[in-house]
Amino acid sequence: MIFPVIMAGGTGTRFWPKSRSRFPKQFLEFNQEESLLQATHRRFSALVPDHQIYVVTNKRYSNRVNTQLTSLPPANIIVEPMRRDTASCIGLATTFLSNVRKEGVMVIVPSDHHISREEEFLDTVRAAVQTATVTDCIVTLGISPTEPKTGYGYIKQGEIRDGMPSSGKRVYRAAGFTEKPNLERAQEYLAAGNYLWNSGIFICRVDVMLEAIAEHMPKLARSLDRISKFIGTPEQDSEIRKCYRDMEKISIDFGIMEKADNILVIPCDCGWDDVGSWSVLGTMLPRDSYGNSVRGLHVGIDTSNCIIIGGDSKLVATLGIEDLIVVQTRDVVMVCKRDRDQEVKELVKLVKSPELRKFW
Amino acid sequence: MIFPVIMAGGTGTRFWPKSRSRFPKQFLEFNQEESLLQATHRRFSALVPDHQIYVVTNKRYSNRVNTQLTSLPPANIIVEPMRRDTASCIGLATTFLSNVRKEGVMVIVPSDHHISREEEFLDTVRAAVQTATVTDCIVTLGISPTEPKTGYGYIKQGEIRDGMPSSGKRVYRAAGFTEKPNLERAQEYLAAGNYLWNSGIFICRVDVMLEAIAEHMPKLARSLDRISKFIGTPEQDSEIRKCYRDMEKISIDFGIMEKADNILVIPCDCGWDDVGSWSVLGTMLPRDSYGNSVRGLHVGIDTSNCIIIGGDSKLVATLGIEDLIVVQTRDVVMVCKRDRDQEVKELVKLVKSPELRKFW
Repeated sequence: MIFPVIMAGGTGTRFWPKSRSRFPKQFLEFNQEESLLQATHRRFSALVPDHQIYVVTNKRYSNRVNTQLTSLPPANIIVEPMRRDTASCIGLATTFLSNVRKEGVMVIVPSDHHISREEEFLDTVRAAVQTATVTDCIVTLGISPTEPKTGYGYIKQGEIRDGMPSSGKRVYRAAGFTEKPNLERAQEYLAAGNYLWNSGIFICRVDVMLEAIAEHMPKLARSLDRISKFIGTPEQDSEIRKCYRDMEKISIDFGIMEKADNILVIPCDCGWDDVGSWSVLGTMLPRDSYGNSVRGLHVGIDTSNCIIIGGDSKLVATLGIEDLIVVQTRDVVMVCKRDRDQEVKELVKLVKSPELRKFW
Repeated sequence: MIFPVIMAGGTGTRFWPKSRSRFPKQFLEFNQEESLLQATHRRFSALVPDHQIYVVTNKRYSNRVNTQLTSLPPANIIVEPMRRDTASCIGLATTFLSNVRKEGVMVIVPSDHHISREEEFLDTVRAAVQTATVTDCIVTLGISPTEPKTGYGYIKQGEIRDGMPSSGKRVYRAAGFTEKPNLERAQEYLAAGNYLWNSGIFICRVDVMLEAIAEHMPKLARSLDRISKFIGTPEQDSEIRKCYRDMEKISIDFGIMEKADNILVIPCDCGWDDVGSWSVLGTMLPRDSYGNSVRGLHVGIDTSNCIIIGGDSKLVATLGIEDLIVVQTRDVVMVCKRDRDQEVKELVKLVKSPELRKFW
């Protein structure tokens, strides 16, 4: 039995001012049809019925998840009382699912990524599920890199694992996880040809994840053990809160993946993008003949290679500009050089000052 | 008796999106204290009592004039029923004033200019009034040019007129009015040293202006004659409307100044600026150490030489930009290269399309 576990607790500061503290990136509709969360949910709806799909999110976003995913049983929204990192998030989901079916296979995915070739993605997920079902391994999806990105973690592809039931997909041992590299290192990885981008997508049986946590994160394991005893009881939420207070902010990559030796990786060429910053929209939205990607009402003279995000009730007007990102919201306008969009999170730090806090 | 006549019927498209069809430039507060119209009125309040100050404006703006100039008697707001040009506007004011005092001296000024050295301005106005009182001439104020501006008309300074009562100011014959020149011509003017910018400020007795209109614009004179008969009667407004319908759109410069030979000019170094476009604000507003002139809430990283105009309830955020003008209003944001601000009126032409008209 497959359990997609969608992680939807992030904040997405790099998409400010559209993403806000109360309305982060995963809830945004970048293509004007569905939010990234809705798209993530829809992809898995093709694979399993709704009652098998789980969403883990922060308590401040649980209503929004409920509103955006109307077909999802509310009980499938697992609520974190405060922000920790992915290790706690995945640990909590694993704990809930261990009460449902220990031999079930979790497909743990971020809620805020874009996938353009969905069939290829699902085929790879199916292969990963087949592999995870019969091995005591955690299977990751590795994205074939197309450029030396410094914003991604990388997975070193080890020797091939033959004999896996993987529908023709090749399965490799993961020979190492690395943090985000500098440019020189990233270029080496790309040239070496045996490094893959870490998609943050993990597929494994519930019991395998429980064991990995017990082995590599014993403190987290003890907290989850305690939580497990209270699931379904009136004390559930207060116990989770109590345990969360003491949990460390550690990513699953750092807490488990970099240490465990039972990690497999399946290369996946599914048009994956983590939608990490505004300039990505330049590749996701259609471009006009001047290279502009426009959402909302816009008039321009001599405007080229810009990303312009407005709305239907407001107007963005541009004159004599190029290579800029202009984002207009109800109360904020941001103008940013296109190649500086990674620094938007630095702007957000300034906006968090007391007198401007309402704009975050 | 001095009659300041403030012309306040313009539209000011180059300050879009702050200036709008219903709220043109003269009503904007560029310095956060008073509008250009209010500043114009205040300057003359030092010279004459309010009942001698007249404002000519379009009917759609008369309420706004009334609201901004609370001390002005409402009867001193002369209302044009439709947009003509400065010849009709000045003609109408002259007609009204000829019913008040024919030997009075009008000081005709635009409502949307900025003057930084007000004492010098008033001293020059006083000199011009003295001269206009005793000659049958129209006195203009000529601004000593500091750069070869192509956006201004120029006045050629002729021989000096000695013996004028002008409080020590030098009075010259105006040897010619020219339209806005091209850059080459403007550079010649600047090098020649005997050209002044045409400020659009004219000082003359009421009867002198009436005669000039009669001589150079006989058709306008006939319309004004007709209007004159109905001033103060119940038919006044409908007669003005009837006459205005047939009036030509001609500026006072083209209709009279370029033809008349009784024009004098007094050079004036009063820090005059016609506030012709957004970049002027860069010189009027204080600059921070990065060369930015900011109004309203702003956060920036690596932002230099920008003019940023927002408000107190909205935020402008900038990252990695230079030499831009960013203007944020309730419903529009404009981003414009600083040296292209003269073309904002071209943007306005696009905005006048049916589907965007509400933004003009």
